[in-house]
Amino acid sequence: MLDPAAIKALTFDVFGTVVDWRSSIVREGEALGRAKGLDVDWPRFADAWRGLYQPAMQRVRTGEAPWTKLDDLHRASLDRLLGEFRITGLSEAEIDDLNRAWHRLDPWPDAVPGLTRLRRRFILATLSNGNVALMVNMAKRAGLPWDAVLGAEVARHYKPQPEAYLTTAALLGLDPGQCLMVAAHNGDLAAASAVGLRTAFVPRPAEHGPNQSRDVTPAREWDVIAKDFLDLADRLGC
Amino acid sequence: MLDPAAIKALTFDVFGTVVDWRSSIVREGEALGRAKGLDVDWPRFADAWRGLYQPAMQRVRTGEAPWTKLDDLHRASLDRLLGEFRITGLSEAEIDDLNRAWHRLDPWPDAVPGLTRLRRRFILATLSNGNVALMVNMAKRAGLPWDAVLGAEVARHYKPQPEAYLTTAALLGLDPGQCLMVAAHNGDLAAASAVGLRTAFVPRPAEHGPNQSRDVTPAREWDVIAKDFLDLADRLGC
Repeated sequence: MLDPAAIKALTFDVFGTVVDWRSSIVREGEALGRAKGLDVDWPRFADAWRGLYQPAMQRVRTGEAPWTKLDDLHRASLDRLLGEFRITGLSEAEIDDLNRAWHRLDPWPDAVPGLTRLRRRFILATLSNGNVALMVNMAKRAGLPWDAVLGAEVARHYKPQPEAYLTTAALLGLDPGQCLMVAAHNGDLAAASAVGLRTAFVPRPAEHGPNQSRDVTPAREWDVIAKDFLDLADRLGC
Repeated sequence: MLDPAAIKALTFDVFGTVVDWRSSIVREGEALGRAKGLDVDWPRFADAWRGLYQPAMQRVRTGEAPWTKLDDLHRASLDRLLGEFRITGLSEAEIDDLNRAWHRLDPWPDAVPGLTRLRRRFILATLSNGNVALMVNMAKRAGLPWDAVLGAEVARHYKPQPEAYLTTAALLGLDPGQCLMVAAHNGDLAAASAVGLRTAFVPRPAEHGPNQSRDVTPAREWDVIAKDFLDLADRLGC
């Protein structure tokens, strides 16, 4: 049983947990497609782009590639997908802008009101694989009230590597056990728990679209299991 | 002449520029003195504590000491001053709490309303020698609306070393010239300018108490010279 008084900070996974990356990338793609007369299956494109996310980070995790921020991994994946989807006729500025669609993801409807309540009592920090600029620009546009933008880039390690979690806690001046990791992904919580963070699971069963099978239910008895961020605020006494 | 449209982020010196460290440390010291029956000249104590700030960081800058966050430098200085001021009878918890007085500094009266206006148009980031936890706790207590808490600790270099400025700009995904360094200290602006940041001088003639002589006027024609943060917002069209 989690004692909320022992928790000082909530650290958040962002892609999928706070923001709906899939619908947002589809929205951005469709707008570009209309403007440029492109015939693309944008849901398939979004899934393919996200599908290259873990393999790209894995090359950094293993040391096969040097530290590379997520914006640049996204761009390398995008360049590859433009070929695979036979998308042509985009200028460098248009490609760069499409890459920055990840800076313009929309929050789930409960995210901003839930975070606003949670922020009264806790420090709220990102613990995302997204780079700082991506997170700052996203927060500015969406109104996400972070107290600090931390995570992979300042740790120079991608989750689920322990350094991502431990560096974020250390930068907040906290022991891992004073941090509650909030994520829609069981694997993220397992890695956070392994290095001493407490865990809150908030399922996002539409993250991957209508046919999602993974991460629909908690894989373990996490410290907190909440329906959404408003329910999380309720359970933490906010 | 500075074109505000070319600026994307304002990066802030904090101690002295945003918050009134001297009055705040005196306030904290006096409260502790009353509670513990201490007879201490707290303004002299505050000045002595701050007087050890640059020498402590200098040992890190030169490599004589390994990277050490400001909380820990403050604590080493405090331990020394407790002896010099013959302050006895404090528990470890009370000494730690006094050290965290730096997390509880009060903003100058124009700081929060000025930042609130500036934030509508610009990304606001700390570029302080204070560590992340210190800055986050200070912001939470004082209501400072930062978009990002960056600076020395994430760069692992203390200002005025170039890395502190350049890493902060890079984490924001910006060129140095897209960042406007805001400080009450000519030396900070000189170092920022040397690596390409734009500069705004906001004098704080009471930072060091009633007899301040340094940094009362701009030493050069900085890009912006403003009376306070409200005047800065006016000058930047916010």
